[in-house]
Amino acid sequence: MTSDPEFRRCPVSGRWVILAPERAARPIGLSHAKPAVRANAERAVCPFCPGMEHDTPPAVYTVGPGPDWRLRVVPNKFPAVRDGTGVHEVVIETHRHETDPLALTDDELAGVFVAYRERLRVLSATPGVEHVQVFKNVGAEAGASLAHLHSQVIATPMIPPDVWAETENAAQAYRQTGRNVFHDMLEQPSRLVAVADGFALACPFAPRFAYETWLLPTAPPERFEAVTDADCRAVAKLLRRFLTALDEVLGQPAYNWFLHTAPVRAGTPPHYQWHLEILPRTSRPAGFEWATGMFINAVPPERAAAALRERMPLASTTEASASEVSAPEISKTGR
Amino acid sequence: MTSDPEFRRCPVSGRWVILAPERAARPIGLSHAKPAVRANAERAVCPFCPGMEHDTPPAVYTVGPGPDWRLRVVPNKFPAVRDGTGVHEVVIETHRHETDPLALTDDELAGVFVAYRERLRVLSATPGVEHVQVFKNVGAEAGASLAHLHSQVIATPMIPPDVWAETENAAQAYRQTGRNVFHDMLEQPSRLVAVADGFALACPFAPRFAYETWLLPTAPPERFEAVTDADCRAVAKLLRRFLTALDEVLGQPAYNWFLHTAPVRAGTPPHYQWHLEILPRTSRPAGFEWATGMFINAVPPERAAAALRERMPLASTTEASASEVSAPEISKTGR
Repeated sequence: MTSDPEFRRCPVSGRWVILAPERAARPIGLSHAKPAVRANAERAVCPFCPGMEHDTPPAVYTVGPGPDWRLRVVPNKFPAVRDGTGVHEVVIETHRHETDPLALTDDELAGVFVAYRERLRVLSATPGVEHVQVFKNVGAEAGASLAHLHSQVIATPMIPPDVWAETENAAQAYRQTGRNVFHDMLEQPSRLVAVADGFALACPFAPRFAYETWLLPTAPPERFEAVTDADCRAVAKLLRRFLTALDEVLGQPAYNWFLHTAPVRAGTPPHYQWHLEILPRTSRPAGFEWATGMFINAVPPERAAAALRERMPLASTTEASASEVSAPEISKTGR
Repeated sequence: MTSDPEFRRCPVSGRWVILAPERAARPIGLSHAKPAVRANAERAVCPFCPGMEHDTPPAVYTVGPGPDWRLRVVPNKFPAVRDGTGVHEVVIETHRHETDPLALTDDELAGVFVAYRERLRVLSATPGVEHVQVFKNVGAEAGASLAHLHSQVIATPMIPPDVWAETENAAQAYRQTGRNVFHDMLEQPSRLVAVADGFALACPFAPRFAYETWLLPTAPPERFEAVTDADCRAVAKLLRRFLTALDEVLGQPAYNWFLHTAPVRAGTPPHYQWHLEILPRTSRPAGFEWATGMFINAVPPERAAAALRERMPLASTTEASASEVSAPEISKTGR
């Protein structure tokens, strides 16, 4: 038995999605064993490994001393934006040639989020920058062109449409109901995946991709720039449990994650909340999606949340209070 | 030498695109030999071949008699929408197990567009339907789950956001300037690819994908439902030349095409014009695109148009007047 298709509009993004459980029954429909596999585009010589520092522009942020660096942020050698039009940087997440985020230690993964915060702070203060977009592609199918773990940061002289739409929808809902649409996500048990140490994972009401999940704090700060090192460590611990559960459910899917925080000059609006959106590439957008801007998703978020919840029981409860979590021991250099 | 990145907003879709020619220089950047290859997902038994009619619901439109059918439209066995929420059909474009649209004869390809028109007419008159979306996925990378040539039609009880945005943007431009944004495309020689027999090919000002090209008539009708059989034949001839040129430039890329015509109840607004958008899958949308709703395109449309124009000189001039083109000789049955 499958349920009937359902049209849903995401209260945050404003996006329309068709939930079509019957599509999962297709011969090549989403099966738990066959999403887009996390194949990697390996190169003979990795430009992100130690010893290849000459192959990237000089670092703007480094963790660890000199040649013994542990994380580097460098300008993108092939930038999508440049000078007057923006800034494009690469976060090389570890000195080791690892390709799976789960290969990072908790400290290393926390350090990646600390690096996001530091670059957000610097780039937000750069003249002309209106928005800073942090994102990550895992697996060639998700758009990763290099296997060595890395994220990217693109600062733009404009507020991108989807970021603008989120802030507008959230503001409108707040005016009409006095409620924060992000905090509302925490009060929907059927789509909640886990809560731990001040952070939560929840499937959105109208996800574009099957098993799409958002990570967000259960309390301030509203802006990602204000997170503490301890926050980053809690995010890393929860994210690791989530990625492990995701691998169990979907095999090793390719995925993207990206950070949404309010635009640079938006201040700290009470209607907005920074969050990390994680999109497993469980389907390939095709003619219908490009034609309409709508998405067809064969797995309702309530079912996805239940499957994920089942696989991360430990993270569903608070294991340690935030005060017990020590800050990552990393030294920071660079501008 | 490459040029600087440039932000462009499409006057039709309202979409923002970053043209970043430097990205083409990446080691894995777009090369003319390596777009998403048109690999197909072949199945042991093809449900769209003659003799397998029992594997699909009964046809709602057929060309050719009984078991000697040449084209069939059937309800999708695994519909994304259904009953109260819409209609989902499949256009099986030929009885032969062909996988490349270029394997169709001009008559057959014209017949596909006639089938689009016929289903648009019927579905537009169906109670509750607000929009009818015709689309096609060529190659697994473009989302095709079956290799045997087919298109799809999805009728929805709402106007999809991208269709709505186009009609709104076009209406606003018309009010402000008295001009039709689609006809404006025909007056930009740097992005015009070809004109023949009352139809044109042009690259849009802000394309999402490298080599994205739109096909549109140079004169009425504004609505696709009103095209003649001769129009469909002229479209087929021009499209064949374009697809041949595209293969020459990009190898055999996977691609999508889809038809935009004004929403069912929009009448025949002077600001709108039906068109076919053809999107070669020259890049994989990744974290940045999903995060922002913006696209990064490494090939400016002026350069794409020049490369395509060079490869289809015959189609740049009118070979035959529309009156010389005979209507496709196909018989139609079905409701």
